[in-house]
Amino acid sequence: MYKVYGDIQSGNCYKIKLLMSFLEIEHEWVAVDILSGETHTDEFKKINPNTRIPVLVLTDGSYLTESNAILNYLAEGTDFLPSDRYQRALVLQWQFFEQYSHEPYIATARFIRKYLGLPKDREAEYQAKQAGGHKALSVMETQLRQSPFLIGDVPTIADISLYAYTHVSHEGGFDLDNYPSIQKWLLAIEQQRNYLGMNA
Amino acid sequence: MYKVYGDIQSGNCYKIKLLMSFLEIEHEWVAVDILSGETHTDEFKKINPNTRIPVLVLTDGSYLTESNAILNYLAEGTDFLPSDRYQRALVLQWQFFEQYSHEPYIATARFIRKYLGLPKDREAEYQAKQAGGHKALSVMETQLRQSPFLIGDVPTIADISLYAYTHVSHEGGFDLDNYPSIQKWLLAIEQQRNYLGMNA
Repeated sequence: MYKVYGDIQSGNCYKIKLLMSFLEIEHEWVAVDILSGETHTDEFKKINPNTRIPVLVLTDGSYLTESNAILNYLAEGTDFLPSDRYQRALVLQWQFFEQYSHEPYIATARFIRKYLGLPKDREAEYQAKQAGGHKALSVMETQLRQSPFLIGDVPTIADISLYAYTHVSHEGGFDLDNYPSIQKWLLAIEQQRNYLGMNA
Repeated sequence: MYKVYGDIQSGNCYKIKLLMSFLEIEHEWVAVDILSGETHTDEFKKINPNTRIPVLVLTDGSYLTESNAILNYLAEGTDFLPSDRYQRALVLQWQFFEQYSHEPYIATARFIRKYLGLPKDREAEYQAKQAGGHKALSVMETQLRQSPFLIGDVPTIADISLYAYTHVSHEGGFDLDNYPSIQKWLLAIEQQRNYLGMNA
């Protein structure tokens, strides 16, 4: 059985939980508390020297890190990862977009506001994250005006990757009123069979 | 024939040039100047609304963005991308590591120093990038002590992704003296058939 080291309130970890729910993959979930430094112990560094979660442990004991790499591994051969070469590359395009152009703005703003309580010394950084976050949302809105899901008519792991922090973007101060296609897409994902919320 | 919009001095674009050289893929290279704002024109936004290079144009006119997604597309079926499911996931693991934990520190420090000339108002940011860059280099060194290339005995696109900014990390103020395995790995890549330098 798979084992996952994660924190369900982290969007990066929630991605794995959500895909595993959609695919009905049995697993053991090992809760790791980032805020209390549990990813920085010597023991954890043996699992991931980059001191981050999630980490997937395969049945043979091998480790796999980076949320989007884990999604690709788990989704192989399922409807959540197309077999067509160009479509697979588009899935990766959106996932790299997520990690470079979306997460560092939207997830970080959410972290500063929700977990740190928007302290005075992080306020400038929080404000600076807003423009980048809205740029990422605009790029998504442009695509979702053209297709119901990011790659086409059915959800893929690209949608799961971007859903994770987009659906809680209000916790980072992002108002989705000006992104009607994103709102419709969020609902469409929530209506999928075996959908699981972040607080479930 | 493929077309690539890029700037060879950008590590993200150089990755594509290097893989295309290794694989002897014919292509047209369209030089794009980031510094003069060429990725922010209305015309370019139709190609990539996220206003970034590189962009690959396929023979049917379809676009693909995000350097690491492009590498995966081009390397499919070659020795640079394993067919084994776990090894493919490890390639992605290192590529997501590159975009989230390596590039934002090492490439950004290089940009501030080499392209902007380390102006006074970016000095604090430049200094703040050093710790994150060294953490990324340490994670790489840990792996490269165990295997000559990131995934094993032969180079993959994971190595190309991380080579791009690591081999010019001194331009961002990173000294590689304490990373002997990285130094050996850089040389091993440079000794591959059809290797092409950034200034070639």
